[in-house]
Amino acid sequence: MAQNIYDNKTFFDGYLQLPRQVYGLEGAPEWPATKAMFPDIQGKRAVDLGCGLGWVCRWMRENGASSVLGIDLSENMIMKAKEKTNDTAIEYQVEDLDKLNLPSASCDFVFSSLTFHYIQDFDRLIQTIHQGLKPSGHLVFTMEHPIYMSAKNSQWQQDEEGHKIWSIRGYSKEGKRESDWFVKGVIKYHRTIATTVNTLISHGFVILRLEEFAPTKEQIVQNSSLEEELERPMMLLISATKRPK
Amino acid sequence: MAQNIYDNKTFFDGYLQLPRQVYGLEGAPEWPATKAMFPDIQGKRAVDLGCGLGWVCRWMRENGASSVLGIDLSENMIMKAKEKTNDTAIEYQVEDLDKLNLPSASCDFVFSSLTFHYIQDFDRLIQTIHQGLKPSGHLVFTMEHPIYMSAKNSQWQQDEEGHKIWSIRGYSKEGKRESDWFVKGVIKYHRTIATTVNTLISHGFVILRLEEFAPTKEQIVQNSSLEEELERPMMLLISATKRPK
Repeated sequence: MAQNIYDNKTFFDGYLQLPRQVYGLEGAPEWPATKAMFPDIQGKRAVDLGCGLGWVCRWMRENGASSVLGIDLSENMIMKAKEKTNDTAIEYQVEDLDKLNLPSASCDFVFSSLTFHYIQDFDRLIQTIHQGLKPSGHLVFTMEHPIYMSAKNSQWQQDEEGHKIWSIRGYSKEGKRESDWFVKGVIKYHRTIATTVNTLISHGFVILRLEEFAPTKEQIVQNSSLEEELERPMMLLISATKRPK
Repeated sequence: MAQNIYDNKTFFDGYLQLPRQVYGLEGAPEWPATKAMFPDIQGKRAVDLGCGLGWVCRWMRENGASSVLGIDLSENMIMKAKEKTNDTAIEYQVEDLDKLNLPSASCDFVFSSLTFHYIQDFDRLIQTIHQGLKPSGHLVFTMEHPIYMSAKNSQWQQDEEGHKIWSIRGYSKEGKRESDWFVKGVIKYHRTIATTVNTLISHGFVILRLEEFAPTKEQIVQNSSLEEELERPMMLLISATKRPK
């Protein structure tokens, strides 16, 4: 099962201070690129895996989804998410995604933001999502980019000419990675882009688009700290659809 | 147009000493993974873009292809390739892939090995290949992995704990890269995995499989120098098919 670090008080208190939790979707620089991958959600049943405080659940309802199911491992998260809405078409569940079950062909759209790198059994999860989607349903997800997370606690360094560089190590050695983020020993699971893509295809998804998030010029003008994201991608974004039989 | 470095004598003399030129396909560690991506080529018309000395052209004929067209920018290469066969069903052409034309729906299978990172106009090339393939035709190619080539003349370094690391820089800054390989100033064009994949999809290909070449345990036992390839991928391998209309 996935580690429940979000219910660690030190972690959770730190996490709540992230711009994307304070400011919501506007605080997430990859959000414009992410929502550009969304299918038409008008009148659709959507599921958000690792929904956190429910920002995207609420956005999807405000943008036409008929109902939304938000799932998260953290009781803290789900409690706070519930506090933020009175919308009865948004339902929240506490659940470990490594043990997820979805009713067969029950939803049109599955979304997940920055969660899949915590998943131990990615193959099982993708199979579960695939069978939970209706024919021609869509999956859009973001995760930490394997370049970003292959080496333990990788950080910016400088080469001899003073350029910012990022180190890679053990890229093809998949599996557990412990990193320090708010607390020591946050457990993530590194897998390559190849494994990510091939797992989707092997379960019957067609890849529609793949992005390695890079900020736009406009985003860098507004927030110059984003410029370093051009040096190495931090996030992988994938859009896929369930292949018609 | 692509730089014709292969007709530089110093470069070409060095290139001919590479294991994969001396020993052919057995000298290319990614060959087993590459040929595992091939479609059935029995009775099929195949094209090899950047065919070099023609190793794969000959292999395809020996394995059932009805005819093979090998194309390379280098006259040296094509001359040597022609010397290596009397097979009249293998045809060779000197041509710049940045200006390639293929007759419409004229071939079943397009292959390319370690060539696409020399191509300036990848979008044009993929469009050309797509229209040159018959419906449900296949494209399999290998190229330098963007992780390998994002930083100029990147090389192995060691972190504080003595682990081999590889530096990334400017991953999202696509375009020309000059590197030193046998001679100074070999020109390549860096593009991300996202651009590579999305270009294929936008022109009507369906991605069948993506590999970031890593040697098998057996390969490492036979050749321990391959072990470092587990630290960062050097080659990207993609298999795609022309989407039925």
